[in-house]
Amino acid sequence: MHHLELPGYTVHISDLRSLTGHLNQHLKARTWSRVAVLVDENTEQDCWPLISEANWPTGTERLEIPAGELYKTLSTCEGLWEAFTNLELDRHSLLVNLGGGVIGDMGGFAASTYMRGFSFLNIPTTLLAQVDASVGGKLGVDFNGLKNMIGLFADPRGVLICPEFLATLPYEQLRSGYAEVLKHALIRDRKSWTELAGQSLEDVLDWETLIARSVSIKKAVVEADPNESGLRKILNFGHTIGHAVESLQLESDAPLLHGDAIAVGMIAETWLSYRACGMSGVERDAVAQSIAAVYPRFKLADVTVESVLELMRLDKKNRAGEIRFSLLPSIGACKPDVVLPEEKLGDWLGEALEYYQDTYKPISGNSANN
Amino acid sequence: MHHLELPGYTVHISDLRSLTGHLNQHLKARTWSRVAVLVDENTEQDCWPLISEANWPTGTERLEIPAGELYKTLSTCEGLWEAFTNLELDRHSLLVNLGGGVIGDMGGFAASTYMRGFSFLNIPTTLLAQVDASVGGKLGVDFNGLKNMIGLFADPRGVLICPEFLATLPYEQLRSGYAEVLKHALIRDRKSWTELAGQSLEDVLDWETLIARSVSIKKAVVEADPNESGLRKILNFGHTIGHAVESLQLESDAPLLHGDAIAVGMIAETWLSYRACGMSGVERDAVAQSIAAVYPRFKLADVTVESVLELMRLDKKNRAGEIRFSLLPSIGACKPDVVLPEEKLGDWLGEALEYYQDTYKPISGNSANN
Repeated sequence: MHHLELPGYTVHISDLRSLTGHLNQHLKARTWSRVAVLVDENTEQDCWPLISEANWPTGTERLEIPAGELYKTLSTCEGLWEAFTNLELDRHSLLVNLGGGVIGDMGGFAASTYMRGFSFLNIPTTLLAQVDASVGGKLGVDFNGLKNMIGLFADPRGVLICPEFLATLPYEQLRSGYAEVLKHALIRDRKSWTELAGQSLEDVLDWETLIARSVSIKKAVVEADPNESGLRKILNFGHTIGHAVESLQLESDAPLLHGDAIAVGMIAETWLSYRACGMSGVERDAVAQSIAAVYPRFKLADVTVESVLELMRLDKKNRAGEIRFSLLPSIGACKPDVVLPEEKLGDWLGEALEYYQDTYKPISGNSANN
Repeated sequence: MHHLELPGYTVHISDLRSLTGHLNQHLKARTWSRVAVLVDENTEQDCWPLISEANWPTGTERLEIPAGELYKTLSTCEGLWEAFTNLELDRHSLLVNLGGGVIGDMGGFAASTYMRGFSFLNIPTTLLAQVDASVGGKLGVDFNGLKNMIGLFADPRGVLICPEFLATLPYEQLRSGYAEVLKHALIRDRKSWTELAGQSLEDVLDWETLIARSVSIKKAVVEADPNESGLRKILNFGHTIGHAVESLQLESDAPLLHGDAIAVGMIAETWLSYRACGMSGVERDAVAQSIAAVYPRFKLADVTVESVLELMRLDKKNRAGEIRFSLLPSIGACKPDVVLPEEKLGDWLGEALEYYQDTYKPISGNSANN
């Protein structure tokens, strides 16, 4: 069992039995005027049964939304606000978010803005949500095809993590979350990276410790910079290109899971780290190959230098339209706010996307770029 | 010139020349990536010219929305977020809200949720916004006919108040804002009330001092309870019934301005204060008559005990569906969280609405109720 104390709440990482105990403590911590549980059709079926025996107050209702990033919209949010009204939730209510990042981000946003905010508790059920969304208080929805464009920072009452939920996930979802685990090691913990780089997902035996280590890296970064004015931007490694790729593929016939897009972004930004931030060619290829050992080569139908550039210009990390990267001088270190020379941007981005493709060639095709 | 220091920002109340000076200080306080000014068609025409000569950075754009509470919606907000994207606003931008409560509440909400929040500065141009919305950080939009249902608490960079903007207002708008001035005195400052009760709107000579005094009452209450967990609820005197009346009339052919609805609510809740909170009959009638001397009798087309009750049950101050009033034991004092006996609620509310009508009868028609 692991506990991570944050300024406003605690993250518990434990088995299912302890999770239920912590959940019951939250349920009786206050006289909640009403408790509701937000689920999607997957977590309703696979996850709710695991916690349905907790001491839910009489009248606890479940609210179900469709699963998937496509529904992380203002329109779904409006449906939630209407449901809150119908259930007579008020400022003294509690919303329990049972699901992945969409449930946590959108449920938290809906709760934090209804009547100017009521309490929510997160039970993240995907690896991605467990290691990424569980700390940091970033809430929101996508808007006009741009990820998390509308949102705010707000803390949950608590976060309850249990690796047993991971057994409910398809392999692809597990792999998607693993990208953030790799990222946390890459930006901040060389030792972790060395361990992770050598193993496949199937090799992981102790998920509780792996999750706790990954969350604690994120916690250290977020606590040093809660409002993302400086250090916290290093968490965006792989996300500048990754988000653009994710947005581009979102409405294609081959949409990428978040982590899969971030894996693409991490390989491409590892190239930029080599180009502009001093990473060695050896580390560059080692990082790319380790990522490629876990992630297959994705078909990037609509991804061109121009389309990626256009989307990157709308990135939330930018300042006055200037694209800002978080890049790796070396494994285990990350530098935020890297601005690439405007005249090189297109070329280097083209190289980075080409390097992504080359990484998957059976025999190294990178020599031309060295 | 008056300055009120709040924890995160300062409210300046001054003439136009000083306001422009403070505005220029805000404009040069940081290298804003971009500055935009939010106006409606009225403030574009009447208020923008008064500050157009400030040192606006090159590229400052004005965003115009239609005037009026009817447009304080998520849909208008979506239009703003789209405009922010088109103007390439980012987290380092500044939005200047030039207008009444709708502009300030919605502009602040839109800015606080775009990319998880960027800075905004308020220049309230109506008396209502100057004395009420300028302090407290309540932001938001109406939703499904319910006032301010979606929103959050966030502070502006600063608030610049200038009574000269009041000259741009129709008399009705001035009267509407005056309801909050009366309310601040009633709940917290008997001496102010005594002065205000004796004067008509036309008698006010020193608006700067009147506004400063009213804002400082609100400031004292808000600072003692920023998240509305206790004392701050006294600011809701007149608002439980007033909001219901306002909502009911919103789509009628005779919609009420906010303050006019609050004037109705204050008279009705003065009756409840007498019924349930120990206010004397003498003070009750004195309060009602003083309010009635400023506000004409409004035609309340759709206002019935049942319709008001139904709306009050959705009030944000409630807890577990129980309606909570803020009532006056005496002039200058206010008690929050008053719960009326459920079995009396309908009757007393009926009496309160009748008392509102009776207040306007030429010869006192209240004797039957005494």
